[in-house]
Amino acid sequence: MSVPAVFMSQSTIPILQQEINEALGALRLAERAPRRLYAPAAYLLELPAKRTRPLLCLLAYRAWQPDHTSCMPAALALELFHNFTLVHDDIMDNAPTRRGQPTVHARWDSSTAILAGDALYAYTQQLLVQAFPQQAAALIRCYSQAALEVCEGQMRDMELAAAEAATLADYMAMIEQKTAALIGGSLCIGALAAQAPPGAPEALDRYGRLMGIAFQLLDDLLDVYAEADKFGKQPGGDIIENKKTYLWLRAHELADPAQLQALQYWASVQDQPEAKVAAVRALYDNLDLPTRTRDLIVDYRRQAEARLQPLLPNPALQILHEYLSEVLTRAY
Amino acid sequence: MSVPAVFMSQSTIPILQQEINEALGALRLAERAPRRLYAPAAYLLELPAKRTRPLLCLLAYRAWQPDHTSCMPAALALELFHNFTLVHDDIMDNAPTRRGQPTVHARWDSSTAILAGDALYAYTQQLLVQAFPQQAAALIRCYSQAALEVCEGQMRDMELAAAEAATLADYMAMIEQKTAALIGGSLCIGALAAQAPPGAPEALDRYGRLMGIAFQLLDDLLDVYAEADKFGKQPGGDIIENKKTYLWLRAHELADPAQLQALQYWASVQDQPEAKVAAVRALYDNLDLPTRTRDLIVDYRRQAEARLQPLLPNPALQILHEYLSEVLTRAY
Repeated sequence: MSVPAVFMSQSTIPILQQEINEALGALRLAERAPRRLYAPAAYLLELPAKRTRPLLCLLAYRAWQPDHTSCMPAALALELFHNFTLVHDDIMDNAPTRRGQPTVHARWDSSTAILAGDALYAYTQQLLVQAFPQQAAALIRCYSQAALEVCEGQMRDMELAAAEAATLADYMAMIEQKTAALIGGSLCIGALAAQAPPGAPEALDRYGRLMGIAFQLLDDLLDVYAEADKFGKQPGGDIIENKKTYLWLRAHELADPAQLQALQYWASVQDQPEAKVAAVRALYDNLDLPTRTRDLIVDYRRQAEARLQPLLPNPALQILHEYLSEVLTRAY
Repeated sequence: MSVPAVFMSQSTIPILQQEINEALGALRLAERAPRRLYAPAAYLLELPAKRTRPLLCLLAYRAWQPDHTSCMPAALALELFHNFTLVHDDIMDNAPTRRGQPTVHARWDSSTAILAGDALYAYTQQLLVQAFPQQAAALIRCYSQAALEVCEGQMRDMELAAAEAATLADYMAMIEQKTAALIGGSLCIGALAAQAPPGAPEALDRYGRLMGIAFQLLDDLLDVYAEADKFGKQPGGDIIENKKTYLWLRAHELADPAQLQALQYWASVQDQPEAKVAAVRALYDNLDLPTRTRDLIVDYRRQAEARLQPLLPNPALQILHEYLSEVLTRAY
């Protein structure tokens, strides 16, 4: 069987996103009993989202199997897992809103949010292996590894925020675990489910991690340099909060004594957000951080491509890489 | 291969408990990085405990396999899962201590406790399937089902505490999910791992659930009637807190208008704990609740035995049932 050419085209992504949304709805999660558990568990899932992780899983599956129908439950497991981490992270971060809506613990309470997250996670396991009894052990191994890393990454993120002497190496390790491990894991799960040739699931895992790190670096860059109307939120938030991003940590490495003093001065300023953002951005400019960060993103993307290369040509993987590359060139 | 007679004897339980403790120690969970995640994750596990769930899993496995070595990681997964639920439940219940020690969120903080619980749960999945790739899908199905029920049961427990009109049916549904589902699940997992004959895992699951319900009823009874030195904590706590236990709910069903008024009066009393416990206990006596509860426990035990019967004779299952029966006759 060959992949229908009309499907594997520019329109593949929105079609898959639509299918994922329909399949999520068909779970009827919010209607399960007890509703006081499942309504909060389903709440975030019902808000519009890009569905990146299930999308990556389905594309990886389609790289070796023509029909992705049986992979949909495993793909949904990844979206539910992602939502579980958001629900628990929002409690830890004391976040009042997400995607413009009250967070689960804000709308209900912390106990409900803890339990709703736990239930989402418990449910993902049966979804993951449902259609693939032969590959269940390999799928669970990959999934459990990614899930553990997401927990470790979240802890490293909290450690980093509290640490006096944080290093770039700490930061890179943190973003690989907190963000990139699940991007890689989503691709690995799709490939394992599709019974891809030996080595391919691992190559896609590594590819996804490298692209995931590049995304996070771009996110850090855009938080300082994006135009507000393209970025979707006011840039400069990380600077105002003294967040230890790639740019912040690299600036502290590169700064001469006078620049370091200026960075420390502005870190202590709390009542002049606009002046603070402008001054720190000017310091970042002087340290050539926009170019340095972009170069690093390009470097990660090249490393990722090197992992993908041996698996090409493959229509689904080409669409996958085009899609992820497009995200990486946004707002440039 | 036959089961060594010297092992399958009265001393089986303490030997297995010792092995479980050694295997738990050998995981070296507390030493993993980042330590700020794994030290709190391992903390409760290091306190002395009966290790009931892994013990049940190993006994069920031994019912069909002579050597339980390969089942140990799956058995540990159940103890780690149980600890994950304790860590999260303690946050929800705002409990300052457990087993005489500060709870995880009290010793560290809530964010750490949420994340430590999540990491424990993530880790259990790879432990569960590690030695049984062929049975992985069935193991995960059984495990995920029990885990979901534990979450549902905890939510029903919180609902019950807040509900104006709670019924005995609500209560029985709650304890089956919150407590008994994982007792049944532990046996089911051991049997599935051992490739027990068709029907046996399900029979043991049901047996475990019925015995688990009986335990919870006994716990409710002992909280009112146990002698303090045998019970390990001061009896009467449930009465003082107006907790909706089996006895509380059954009393409200059976009470005549005068007795109902007395129950309502004592529920409103907060400053005379000793008088309250004595008065409510006397009401329970008048309603014949000790006998009624004991009869119900015996009834559940008989139902459980009926599920076990077709699998006997089997040395490991006989030890299993002796062990659980002994727990059910404690303090009588």
